[in-house]
Amino acid sequence: MGHGGNIYRFAQHLGCLPEQVLDFSANINPEQAVDLDCLQQVQVAPYADPDYSALKQALKTRYPQPVGVEIEVFNGDSAAIFAILRYLQPNDLVLYTPLYGEYAQIAGHLGCTLHNINRFGSVTAAVPKNSTVIFVNPATPDGRLYEMQALLTQWQATDCTIIVNESFLDFCVMDSVAEHITHYDRLYVIKSLSKFYGCAGIRIGFILAAAQAIKALIRFEPTWKLSSLDMAYMRQALANMAFIERTRQQTAYRRDLLGQALQASGLFEQIYPGQANFLLAKLVNDGDGYQLQARLAASRLLVRVCDNFTGLDKSHVRFAVKDESAIAQLASCLREIHW
Amino acid sequence: MGHGGNIYRFAQHLGCLPEQVLDFSANINPEQAVDLDCLQQVQVAPYADPDYSALKQALKTRYPQPVGVEIEVFNGDSAAIFAILRYLQPNDLVLYTPLYGEYAQIAGHLGCTLHNINRFGSVTAAVPKNSTVIFVNPATPDGRLYEMQALLTQWQATDCTIIVNESFLDFCVMDSVAEHITHYDRLYVIKSLSKFYGCAGIRIGFILAAAQAIKALIRFEPTWKLSSLDMAYMRQALANMAFIERTRQQTAYRRDLLGQALQASGLFEQIYPGQANFLLAKLVNDGDGYQLQARLAASRLLVRVCDNFTGLDKSHVRFAVKDESAIAQLASCLREIHW
Repeated sequence: MGHGGNIYRFAQHLGCLPEQVLDFSANINPEQAVDLDCLQQVQVAPYADPDYSALKQALKTRYPQPVGVEIEVFNGDSAAIFAILRYLQPNDLVLYTPLYGEYAQIAGHLGCTLHNINRFGSVTAAVPKNSTVIFVNPATPDGRLYEMQALLTQWQATDCTIIVNESFLDFCVMDSVAEHITHYDRLYVIKSLSKFYGCAGIRIGFILAAAQAIKALIRFEPTWKLSSLDMAYMRQALANMAFIERTRQQTAYRRDLLGQALQASGLFEQIYPGQANFLLAKLVNDGDGYQLQARLAASRLLVRVCDNFTGLDKSHVRFAVKDESAIAQLASCLREIHW
Repeated sequence: MGHGGNIYRFAQHLGCLPEQVLDFSANINPEQAVDLDCLQQVQVAPYADPDYSALKQALKTRYPQPVGVEIEVFNGDSAAIFAILRYLQPNDLVLYTPLYGEYAQIAGHLGCTLHNINRFGSVTAAVPKNSTVIFVNPATPDGRLYEMQALLTQWQATDCTIIVNESFLDFCVMDSVAEHITHYDRLYVIKSLSKFYGCAGIRIGFILAAAQAIKALIRFEPTWKLSSLDMAYMRQALANMAFIERTRQQTAYRRDLLGQALQASGLFEQIYPGQANFLLAKLVNDGDGYQLQARLAASRLLVRVCDNFTGLDKSHVRFAVKDESAIAQLASCLREIHW
């Protein structure tokens, strides 16, 4: 069944429907900013505006940017990461681990020389001159939120190309590093919308970068790639400004509930102090996360074992922040497990 | 305003809404196989199945393939073409012109050596050994449908990698060349769904290729790229089998009407005998298509001037097959023009 994260195979394995799975493995807000009624007026027949003007305007209203910082949209942050690395073709790629294994995989395909820096050790360890660094803030799978100034200064001093993935930053009260692009045009900021807006099925992510960098990057992009349905959905979700603060408060409250449930279970020796919409926990006595996963599967609960994150092993399990009822169900299942 | 094809700029220029434009510039079936009610049950929150199993099954049911031929899905045929050329990295690329300029543009970015063969001359002219050939059947912008056997034999004998774009083949009664993949594993077939199913806003195209080739190709693809809304829409559209024959008959009938309207106008010295959902016509006395475009714009009709197709000039204008009422309106506007 792999490390978790595929509710379709999980459901098939259990003989239930995917929608019957209580999915703690995917870090998706359980709340949405709009419902599907917002699609009633969409015209699917015509080609969308190839400049995505209306969507980009909605993004700029939601995420105001200084003059000189431009946007390009992609089919999710994963597509954005592929596009940017394919464009940059870095020789030396610095990854800050623990980190989702997909980055190392892409780097392998592109033939980059990989340099891992363990964030849990010294985050400011030296990086090769002229290298390309990737940093996720807040980080996955532990949710730690980093003050970025010292890192940015260090990277700039080493002439690095900098990619900061802020796909979970909307859950936190911290400014994006995107404003630094006006001072340093080798900085790229990637943002996902699916996590915060609770819609992983809507494939829209974007890159903020210097106008010239965006211009060069999109030469390798097809004229049309985004769904008109997705764009209509997201434009309306982005316009719901009340959703932002409500989601932050709700997520913080539920994350506390989740943390208490994990703590009370007595199954974990460490719960990492995450600031995003998920928590990482380490099982006592280097326990086997796959055993925990199997036990919870009986109740159709899916959790994420983190052994495919560089630097972690199968004693690390990640839990998404879900709603109160789901957390209560998880708490109850965990209570019944005696390790 | 460019060559046409962007109803948003056109509408802005005219001071009307995009939906008020009668768009003859985009080759999109005016009919749809399903309506948006089909989306009511879609869950946008979860990540889609990363294997796209249900969509691929619907595609295989609609386009049955022999064992050994596999499918990979993309955000439209344009994304598929980019992906395949990026993967193949051809040294020598053979384009059969007239052809949409985007191919030459991509080839330029990838640093390929371009070889143009004029289809209107000898289509079986020699190609460099080991080159990669791209052929669109039926061809754009003239809609000519080619018997492929002689070409396939020639290309195979020259050890070519073959890319056949069949994005408009559904409008014709002719088999796909995809079955040849079982004999020649360097053959790739690209198909679009947006043209035939009348939904350019739904971004799904696909590639048929040998199982090993697909496996290598998708290494460079992000895990999630397709919209769950688009997939739900397309699965239901593909299941509407009655739509296929109805669309073919309807398109043939309307194409005749369109051809008669162009003929009766007296403005064109040649109307190419197209087999797809569009017709190419050449203005008398090497007339200026942009002048015609401007005249029709007054009635909010947008047509496509084909000077950005390699091998054509601005006397070539393409008209999409639209419904009877739109064709009647075009006919009436053309009648009022005296060149």
